[in-house]
Amino acid sequence: MSETSKKVVLAYSGGLDTSCILLWLKEKGYQVIAYMANIGQEEDFNVAREKALKIGAVKVIIEDLREVFLSSFVWPAIACGLLYEGKYLLGTAIARPCISEALVRIAKSENASIIAHGATGKGNDQVRFELSCYSLFPDVQILAPWREKEFYTRFSGRSDLLRYAQQNRIPISATPKEPWSTDANLLHISYESGILENPATLAPKQIYKMTNDPLNSPTEPEEIEVSFEQGYPSSVRKLRSNEIFLTPLKIIECLNEIGGIHGIGRIDIVENRFIGLKSRGVYESPGAKILYEAHQELETFILDREVSRVKSYLTNKMSDYVYNECDFVRNGILYSQKYVTGTVRLQLYKGTVSIFSRRSKASLYNERLVSMDIKGGFEPEDAGGFIRTQAYRLKEFNRFEKEATTLKFIE
Amino acid sequence: MSETSKKVVLAYSGGLDTSCILLWLKEKGYQVIAYMANIGQEEDFNVAREKALKIGAVKVIIEDLREVFLSSFVWPAIACGLLYEGKYLLGTAIARPCISEALVRIAKSENASIIAHGATGKGNDQVRFELSCYSLFPDVQILAPWREKEFYTRFSGRSDLLRYAQQNRIPISATPKEPWSTDANLLHISYESGILENPATLAPKQIYKMTNDPLNSPTEPEEIEVSFEQGYPSSVRKLRSNEIFLTPLKIIECLNEIGGIHGIGRIDIVENRFIGLKSRGVYESPGAKILYEAHQELETFILDREVSRVKSYLTNKMSDYVYNECDFVRNGILYSQKYVTGTVRLQLYKGTVSIFSRRSKASLYNERLVSMDIKGGFEPEDAGGFIRTQAYRLKEFNRFEKEATTLKFIE
Amino acid sequence: MSETSKKVVLAYSGGLDTSCILLWLKEKGYQVIAYMANIGQEEDFNVAREKALKIGAVKVIIEDLREVFLSSFVWPAIACGLLYEGKYLLGTAIARPCISEALVRIAKSENASIIAHGATGKGNDQVRFELSCYSLFPDVQILAPWREKEFYTRFSGRSDLLRYAQQNRIPISATPKEPWSTDANLLHISYESGILENPATLAPKQIYKMTNDPLNSPTEPEEIEVSFEQGYPSSVRKLRSNEIFLTPLKIIECLNEIGGIHGIGRIDIVENRFIGLKSRGVYESPGAKILYEAHQELETFILDREVSRVKSYLTNKMSDYVYNECDFVRNGILYSQKYVTGTVRLQLYKGTVSIFSRRSKASLYNERLVSMDIKGGFEPEDAGGFIRTQAYRLKEFNRFEKEATTLKFIE
Amino acid sequence: MSETSKKVVLAYSGGLDTSCILLWLKEKGYQVIAYMANIGQEEDFNVAREKALKIGAVKVIIEDLREVFLSSFVWPAIACGLLYEGKYLLGTAIARPCISEALVRIAKSENASIIAHGATGKGNDQVRFELSCYSLFPDVQILAPWREKEFYTRFSGRSDLLRYAQQNRIPISATPKEPWSTDANLLHISYESGILENPATLAPKQIYKMTNDPLNSPTEPEEIEVSFEQGYPSSVRKLRSNEIFLTPLKIIECLNEIGGIHGIGRIDIVENRFIGLKSRGVYESPGAKILYEAHQELETFILDREVSRVKSYLTNKMSDYVYNECDFVRNGILYSQKYVTGTVRLQLYKGTVSIFSRRSKASLYNERLVSMDIKGGFEPEDAGGFIRTQAYRLKEFNRFEKEATTLKFIE
Repeated sequence: MSETSKKVVLAYSGGLDTSCILLWLKEKGYQVIAYMANIGQEEDFNVAREKALKIGAVKVIIEDLREVFLSSFVWPAIACGLLYEGKYLLGTAIARPCISEALVRIAKSENASIIAHGATGKGNDQVRFELSCYSLFPDVQILAPWREKEFYTRFSGRSDLLRYAQQNRIPISATPKEPWSTDANLLHISYESGILENPATLAPKQIYKMTNDPLNSPTEPEEIEVSFEQGYPSSVRKLRSNEIFLTPLKIIECLNEIGGIHGIGRIDIVENRFIGLKSRGVYESPGAKILYEAHQELETFILDREVSRVKSYLTNKMSDYVYNECDFVRNGILYSQKYVTGTVRLQLYKGTVSIFSRRSKASLYNERLVSMDIKGGFEPEDAGGFIRTQAYRLKEFNRFEKEATTLKFIE
Repeated sequence: MSETSKKVVLAYSGGLDTSCILLWLKEKGYQVIAYMANIGQEEDFNVAREKALKIGAVKVIIEDLREVFLSSFVWPAIACGLLYEGKYLLGTAIARPCISEALVRIAKSENASIIAHGATGKGNDQVRFELSCYSLFPDVQILAPWREKEFYTRFSGRSDLLRYAQQNRIPISATPKEPWSTDANLLHISYESGILENPATLAPKQIYKMTNDPLNSPTEPEEIEVSFEQGYPSSVRKLRSNEIFLTPLKIIECLNEIGGIHGIGRIDIVENRFIGLKSRGVYESPGAKILYEAHQELETFILDREVSRVKSYLTNKMSDYVYNECDFVRNGILYSQKYVTGTVRLQLYKGTVSIFSRRSKASLYNERLVSMDIKGGFEPEDAGGFIRTQAYRLKEFNRFEKEATTLKFIE
Repeated sequence: MSETSKKVVLAYSGGLDTSCILLWLKEKGYQVIAYMANIGQEEDFNVAREKALKIGAVKVIIEDLREVFLSSFVWPAIACGLLYEGKYLLGTAIARPCISEALVRIAKSENASIIAHGATGKGNDQVRFELSCYSLFPDVQILAPWREKEFYTRFSGRSDLLRYAQQNRIPISATPKEPWSTDANLLHISYESGILENPATLAPKQIYKMTNDPLNSPTEPEEIEVSFEQGYPSSVRKLRSNEIFLTPLKIIECLNEIGGIHGIGRIDIVENRFIGLKSRGVYESPGAKILYEAHQELETFILDREVSRVKSYLTNKMSDYVYNECDFVRNGILYSQKYVTGTVRLQLYKGTVSIFSRRSKASLYNERLVSMDIKGGFEPEDAGGFIRTQAYRLKEFNRFEKEATTLKFIE
Repeated sequence: MSETSKKVVLAYSGGLDTSCILLWLKEKGYQVIAYMANIGQEEDFNVAREKALKIGAVKVIIEDLREVFLSSFVWPAIACGLLYEGKYLLGTAIARPCISEALVRIAKSENASIIAHGATGKGNDQVRFELSCYSLFPDVQILAPWREKEFYTRFSGRSDLLRYAQQNRIPISATPKEPWSTDANLLHISYESGILENPATLAPKQIYKMTNDPLNSPTEPEEIEVSFEQGYPSSVRKLRSNEIFLTPLKIIECLNEIGGIHGIGRIDIVENRFIGLKSRGVYESPGAKILYEAHQELETFILDREVSRVKSYLTNKMSDYVYNECDFVRNGILYSQKYVTGTVRLQLYKGTVSIFSRRSKASLYNERLVSMDIKGGFEPEDAGGFIRTQAYRLKEFNRFEKEATTLKFIE
């Protein structure tokens, strides 16, 4: 088989970039299998299928990965409390390995040794995509046209892609492209690049698709209860209607809707990309934000202080990692979740999640013991011994500093 | 000199507890010097002075520590980004060493070897008070009546204190005590114990004194700009009126007021006390919350990723520490602040601080370099080499796992 | 039942201190059950039994805990790589919870609610003993005579104990007490206090009981092989005689003997005690030292770099901890051991353990890939892209510093 | 100016590889400035100069960087306690930035925009070299022939280089190349690759140049004293001869010699390279090993426990880092050294450094306080309160686990 008749599995989105890449790959002689995963983004998959076939894909595969995305990627991330640089809920980062698993599975079953994607050479997505592909399929060859000189010199901007599409009758969306790029799934929509790159200007109001502007969100707050079992979300209850939601898909859809109504989960940050550059990202993740806050509250309520400290170190490590150390760290974290079972009552209002109460059958919180009014098994004198014993180090340090002043130190 | 004629410096608040303690100490034969620090709490210091003298203090000393509290304790805490367990801004924890320094200074100048306080035996305050006193004055003797069997068996509840006060004509505030305890300074008001000890109920609405309920706060948002120099707040500007505030006291007062109007900075948490118990705390710290958010944003905008990671470790350490390792850790952190100079524009609305923009003469953010549309000195092919090199570890791990499956592992 | 007829389980060693404590407890009206655990210390247990009965113990219980000590405490510690402050192999620290478990078990089965021990008020042992007892038996009452004013004022030094023993016909060992104190088990002998407290003098040569002085140890080195399965020692082979040792007890006895001959495992350090004081400790742990070095070597050979980094953090945490967070951290660490299976060849000579070779069926070490002479699937150009991508952060920092110099910074 | 007449500064060693690279660069039309730094390696610099000129260098620059290497790189590394993966003293890693600084300085003064080196594409050296060059001179162009396809396909092995050298009359060392590669400076000699790549075989005995085999080292031990001021080595005294050494160069030369005699500082490890591969390295660093051990001992003797813990985290970070975060972390660490002043007495014998004593005018070690025989200001009862207070968390955890067993957990 000649080089040019090789099979490629392309992560296809239906948009202008990957449509042009599909055609370009075909022109280069590749047999292109277009792969689309439904992880909750808004997309007419039938239209995309027709488009890919029309451009020349030898096969189009579309899979609904929403359930596996939630149960194998999102729920563990919630249980681990993942949060990147204190703000970003990792909506895209978590989705990439889910898609990579599928791409590798398809590549193996279709006997293809090449996987192609439309991510650019400066972003995080290329790293996440490729590291997870290499990890699962070490012999895979990755084709990233936006890093190929031949491709990026030919298509130096969007207008080149548009011209190429028109010349080759690739259908183009009637609505003009927005001046930023977007990634969407059940967990969030992200916006970056284009006019968003200026960190001194606000993201335009019309950018947001999942959430109301808190300035226009309802003036009546809404109460819900979120329950967890061993760190995994297990149910959501709306207090007003007493509706209850029990499956992962229902839970996230309910929280995205209700959170969106109340303007929850808009994030506008400058973050550090994996390759070291700083970039500006705008996100909306209403449901994920609610789950994150509720889980944090329940965990703090239940776990021992020192366990929390170590878990927090592991969580930060895992939020930074994208690959195999994850397995080791995740195991460490999830062990801490075995008691994180209980319910948190929350209020949603004008972009804010407020905690109303926490309940758990087992928590280290002990009202009787902590009460200032009741002794509850606590001997007040013991605290004096505790403090005086702690103070030996301090008194020693004081002595030490006095001794040390007779020596001359450069400060 | 007999034991009973010894001098005691008492941290006096003017309230029922420390008034009874003052009298009790006098009855035990001590000469009591009542010390009050003004760190921004609402208090009629003249009334308190009269009261202490009436009860029998040999001397009453009242000092305005507000400036030193802000410049030596609060500003460094902001620059260090201190936050306990992800939520609490440490308003009381930061104030204690400021007061302890004063108590030790007074004790030394008055030739007193005993310092007394009214903190209880289960809380954090006793620890913070005493460790900072022992650290500065290793030979000091601490008298904590609430840990003395003689005292706490005699006064087993509030009613015993009230009776004792009435019998001894200690003036009692006309307003009945609220069913929780409070600590206030420029940085915050805290509420704990009493009816707040039940973690499954909301804090009562009337508890809050510094902040409006976001449900009733203005429906018009407000914009401000906060500037920092080397991590320290240097000015606040209200955009509506174009007023500018430049001194620490003006800055915090302005932010407390405007933040309070918009319902910013209410915190309701379960936290881990120093002695290991979990307790529930309710806080309002409108100005501190705004400063924390603005500083975080500016720092992320400016600092290198790896510096941020190490700084974040140090900040967590310092948020846990109350004593001498602080000196070492603080030095480490403050070194990271030498470039943290710039301005953040914020919106305050319905309990939320939103970032509008960030500006700095020097930041690692580079719009040209990060832009998806401009090459800006970036060679796309390099990223491929970067990823493939990163991937060696993953491919190796894949090989390794395959080899390892021939061995039998207990999992 | 009156207070004085209460049952006490006493951790009895057979020595002067606990013999006097036994008698003192009896005098105070307690029924004393003397408990001795054989964890490998050199002791005539029958003599000790007779002595305890003669002094007045209502019962003497002696148990051989050597197997459970090794398999449940020592082997996991080796797999976790525990090492305190970079030097101390935690021989006593690991033994305490093993004994505490037994004391609690006995106390429960004998219906005793009090556990007594002879540890002093300044050391680590009281902390380890009591925290593990409280953890397993929260309602237990601990009796530590060396912290009881009545006891320590009556017996202010060794001569008081000796006089008390003579007056009460408690048999005293003929050999005069050495001017330091000692703790021994299968893992080590520790020496501290007395003449050892001066950190500027060498420990006396005659102190050591398990190891030859390297100055007099054999001039012929000796080779052995140590094998591990999932981090646990599984066999030791002497290359000279080809003898092989397979059970935990045989393994540790063999390594203690052969390590002792070659002067391995003497440690003389200043360390930080749990309560914050610095103290000087001298240890000999020949077998443990060999196992530690061999395990470290094998682990480095096998584990991924980032897994090692996180594991090392956890190991340091666990070396510091003595209580329940251990469970969480240990789980995290042991997960990293699932591939740590293989063999290390070592040379023992004049106090030194040298690594001769490492073998494992599965290791991330890949001779072909790392070889400078063979390309082995490695594309040299990729490294250039890797480095240039890493360098963006540095170049940015350079730009940043230049920009920043136009601003005035206090340094 | 044409591309080919561009100036290159080549890091020249005088060996076969960089000699061939020099010629190859000249053939490609570059003007090559050969740069050699004397950082203590054994080399006839005059011979090397002649050779470079003969091959065609337009200029040869040789500088003695030994003093700056010690005072600006080695001494801070000792004060920071740098140790990579628990074993490697970073001898080469520390030298690279020292040389890079010089290369950048020369390049700038000679108006050259290209720096070339002979490091291979799999090692750490390329990374260290280039990242420090990019950091100091962001616009520099790096030329690494071993990563250039044209070069490495033409010279696929040593025999190709030898043939090329002979054809072009490049003088070749008479002694045949050893089957491994070497890097030497004042701090160490490293050996890697070639026959050393097999981790299951011992390094050949004849490999070592700085140290005696401990099997043949003197049977008489030797005592020395090493003193430090604020973490920097300040003097070495030989006790036998009472000679004293005071300058950095004299100190390191003395310790290398005496350490070498006694077989100190041989290290044979498998380590993780920066690019993620595992590799085997053999090192000898007699002087550095002695300084490391002495400094560790003194620091443990002096510093507070919690300061040690944080410092140890920073040291591990810094041992991993090669670039700008170093500045931040180093500042943090060095602050901890302001009290690390004192003297350690050591014995050198058969490959082992033993600590004989430590002395310091100011240390947290307090013989009186720690003594088991003297109360020394310590109240034994306080320890009981300390332990019981610590135990609340454990008792709570016990209660919690019992409550939790009524719930069903998946374990």
